[in-house]
Amino acid sequence: MPPKCIGRPRVDAASPARQNQAHSRHLQSAAGMATDLFEVVSPETALERLLESGLPEPRVESVSLSAATGRTAPRAVRAPEPSPAFDRSLMDGFAVRASDTFGATEALPAALAVVGEVPMGAPPTRGIAPGEAMVIHTGGMLPDGSDAVVMVEHTEWIDDGAIDVMRPVAARDAVIQRGDDVAEGAVVIPQGARLRSQDLGGLAALGVTRVSVAQSPIVGLIATGDEIVPPQHTPVPGEVRDVNSTTLSVEVERAGGAARTYGIVPDARSALETTARDALSECDVVVISAGSSVSARDHTAHVIESLGSPGILAHGLALKPGKPSIVALAEGTPVFGLPGNPVSALVVFDLLVAPTLRRLQGAPAHSPAPPLRARLTRNVASTAGRVDFIPASLAERDDEMWAEPIFGASNLIFTLVRADALVRIPADANGLPAGASVEIRPLA
Amino acid sequence: MPPKCIGRPRVDAASPARQNQAHSRHLQSAAGMATDLFEVVSPETALERLLESGLPEPRVESVSLSAATGRTAPRAVRAPEPSPAFDRSLMDGFAVRASDTFGATEALPAALAVVGEVPMGAPPTRGIAPGEAMVIHTGGMLPDGSDAVVMVEHTEWIDDGAIDVMRPVAARDAVIQRGDDVAEGAVVIPQGARLRSQDLGGLAALGVTRVSVAQSPIVGLIATGDEIVPPQHTPVPGEVRDVNSTTLSVEVERAGGAARTYGIVPDARSALETTARDALSECDVVVISAGSSVSARDHTAHVIESLGSPGILAHGLALKPGKPSIVALAEGTPVFGLPGNPVSALVVFDLLVAPTLRRLQGAPAHSPAPPLRARLTRNVASTAGRVDFIPASLAERDDEMWAEPIFGASNLIFTLVRADALVRIPADANGLPAGASVEIRPLA
Repeated sequence: MPPKCIGRPRVDAASPARQNQAHSRHLQSAAGMATDLFEVVSPETALERLLESGLPEPRVESVSLSAATGRTAPRAVRAPEPSPAFDRSLMDGFAVRASDTFGATEALPAALAVVGEVPMGAPPTRGIAPGEAMVIHTGGMLPDGSDAVVMVEHTEWIDDGAIDVMRPVAARDAVIQRGDDVAEGAVVIPQGARLRSQDLGGLAALGVTRVSVAQSPIVGLIATGDEIVPPQHTPVPGEVRDVNSTTLSVEVERAGGAARTYGIVPDARSALETTARDALSECDVVVISAGSSVSARDHTAHVIESLGSPGILAHGLALKPGKPSIVALAEGTPVFGLPGNPVSALVVFDLLVAPTLRRLQGAPAHSPAPPLRARLTRNVASTAGRVDFIPASLAERDDEMWAEPIFGASNLIFTLVRADALVRIPADANGLPAGASVEIRPLA
Repeated sequence: MPPKCIGRPRVDAASPARQNQAHSRHLQSAAGMATDLFEVVSPETALERLLESGLPEPRVESVSLSAATGRTAPRAVRAPEPSPAFDRSLMDGFAVRASDTFGATEALPAALAVVGEVPMGAPPTRGIAPGEAMVIHTGGMLPDGSDAVVMVEHTEWIDDGAIDVMRPVAARDAVIQRGDDVAEGAVVIPQGARLRSQDLGGLAALGVTRVSVAQSPIVGLIATGDEIVPPQHTPVPGEVRDVNSTTLSVEVERAGGAARTYGIVPDARSALETTARDALSECDVVVISAGSSVSARDHTAHVIESLGSPGILAHGLALKPGKPSIVALAEGTPVFGLPGNPVSALVVFDLLVAPTLRRLQGAPAHSPAPPLRARLTRNVASTAGRVDFIPASLAERDDEMWAEPIFGASNLIFTLVRADALVRIPADANGLPAGASVEIRPLA
C-alpha cells in the first residue's frame, strides 16, 4: 500500500478524533479546491489560454499518399500543373468545329466527313478541317481544329464515311478544357486541411505522390488512483478497472495523435511526479486522468503545477461533466488533468485535448465544419453559467433530427455506449424546452 | 499498344468508311448499352438485389481491445459481470444510514459519530451502526449498514470525532448501486455494432480484454483504360493519371475493408478477364473502375458477366453521377463495375460498395444513424426518376445547416476536394427550391 497524503486518518490509529478532524478539513478544502484556489472558467476560456500560451510548431514529415489518410497538411499544397492537362471530351461522339453545326436540324442536318477516330491515351493522329469530324470517346483528346463534341445520339451515319449532325453545338459543348478543374499554381490543399480520399485523389491526378504532413503528436496517458486496476485484473471489492487508458487511446488516434500509455500510478505524489516527468520528457502532450478520490485529485494538481512554467492555466471548468479538470503548460508541453470518471474524461478530451492536438498538427483547433444540430425530444434542466453535455440517442422525424436525452445514473460509461451523440446545453441556458435546436457532438 | 476491340477503325487503313460505320454502330450500341441491354434501376434496388443474393457470412477473429477500434462485432457481447461491481459513493462525504438524517436541519442537525474512513481500492474495514458515519470518497465502497452518502458540504465537524449533518438524505442518495450501469448478462455491444472508444472502454470496465470482430473483407481494386497511367508517371497528351486506386483504397479502409490494388489494365478483354479472375480468387469483393471509353466500359461489362453466376444483377443506375455502373455477384463474390470518373466512382462506392462491405462484416448495410440534413441555399434543377448527388459546401446560419451547391464543370475530382458534403436530390423531385431540406452525406 503506497503512502497516503498527510493527515489521512487510520481507524486503527490512536486518537481518531484529531485525525478525522484533520482529514475532514483536508477533505473539505480539497472538495472545494476548484472554487477555492482557482476561478472556474468556461472550457472555451481554458482552451484559449492554452492555445495563446505559445504551442510548438508542428514537425513536418513527407509521406506517400497511401500513408497520408487523415493526416494534416501543415502547409498549403499547390498544383504543379493544370488539370486536366489537355482539352478532353465529356461524351462519346464526334469532335467537330461548332461553326460547322450551326443551324443543323433533323430536317436540315449538317453533313460532316468522318476522317478517323481519336485513340484513347494518345494524341489525335491529325486535326480536322472545316466540314470534317472525328470519332471521339469520353476522355479523348480534342483534335486540332475542333472546339466541340456532338453526342453520338445526335448524329446519323451516312453510308459514305460521313455523318449527319442533327443538332447544333456551341464551342466548348461536351468539352472540358485544359485547367478547367485546377489551374497551375492554384492551392489544391489548403493549409491545415485534414487529408480525405478525394484530397489524395486530387494529388494523384496532379502527379503529387508524396505529401508533407504533420508528425503525429505523442500523447502520454497516465491513470491514477489506488482503486484503479488494469482491465485484465480481477478487482477486489473497492477496486475498478481502468477505462480511460482504453478510451483516451482511441480518441488520441482519432485526433491524429499517437498514444503512449504509462499505466496506473498509485495515489502517491512522488510516484505520480516521477511518471509525469518521464511522460513530459517523452511526449508532446501529457494527459493525467486523476483517480476519483480527493487525495488523487489533490496530488494531480500539485504534480501538474510542479512540472514547469507557466504551469496551471485553468483549474476547474464551468462544465458538466468535467468540472474537476486542469489545463496547464509545462515548458511548452500541454498537460491536462482529466477527471477519473470515464464520461467526464471523454467530454473534456473532446473539448480541450482534441483541439490542442489539431493545433499541434497545424490545423485549426476547431473543425471549420459547422456543428451538427438536432431538436430536443423533451425539456432538459441545466444550470445557467455552466455548459452541460447530455448523452442522447438520435432519430429522424419529419425530415428533422431529434435527440432523445439519456439520463443515466451519474456519468457511467455504458450511458455513452447506449448514446449516439452528446447534446450541448449552452452556459447561458437555464434548461431548454422540448423542440429546442441544440448542438450535438456525434459519438463516432 | 494493346489490341483494340473489333471494328475499331484506323485512319490509315483502307476503306475507312466501312470501318467507321462499323465502329459507329459499336459506339452507338455501347453508348446506349445501359438502357438497351438492361433496365436502369435505382441504386437502392441494385443494392437490394445484391444483398438478397446470399452474401457469405462474416469470418470472425478475436482481437485485443487496442486492435478493435472501428471493427465490427458480428455477434452481440454480453456483460460477464455487473457494473459497478459494488455500491459506490458518487461524492466526497460521509457514508451514513439515511434514517439517521431524517429531519436534520441547520438549526437541528443530526450528530453522527465518525468511526473511520473508507479506503480507496479496498473494502471498508468495518460497517456502521445506527448513529455512526464513515468518511468516504467519490468511488469509495459503501460500508455495511450505510445506504446513503452525505456531501461533505452539508456537514459540520464537531471537535470530538463526530459530525453534524445539516440536511436529510434519502436511501441511495449520492450512491450508485451494484449493477446500476449494466446488469450481468445484459447485451453491452449489440450485434453488428462498429466499436467506438466508449464501447471498448465499456468492455475494459467489464474485464473483457479481447473481442470477436469480423475479419476485414479484402477488396480487389482494378483500374482499366488505355488512357490511364499510374500517378507517378508523366502522362503524354491524351493520358490521365489513375485517381480511383488512391481514393477507393481510402474508402475501402473507411468501410472496414482491406484494399488490394491490381494496377491498371489496358482496354483488352483478355487482359481484364485475367486480372479479374486473379482478383476474384484472392478477394472477398472485386471493384473494377472502367476506363471512360466505350470499349473499356464494353469490356468491363462482358468480363464481369463472364466471371460466374448469377452474374450481373444491375447494369445502369438511375443515378447522377454514376449511371454507367454494374452490380454483379460471381460465385458468391460481389463484383462492381464503377464508372472511371473519380467523382462518379466515389458516389457509387458510397451508395453500393460501402454498404456491401458493412454487410459482409455482419453490420447493417446502412448505418442505423439517421441521415444528416441541411437546407439548400439556392434552387437546384434535377430530373425526376433519377437520384442526383451534388457537391456542396456547408455553413451554419440561424442555428441551421445550409448547403451551398458547387456546380463544377462535369464531375471533376477537385470539385469534391472543394466540397464538404454531397447533397442528395431524391428521384421523385423535379429539382428542389432554395430552402428545401435535403439529405447530405458529409465527405469526411
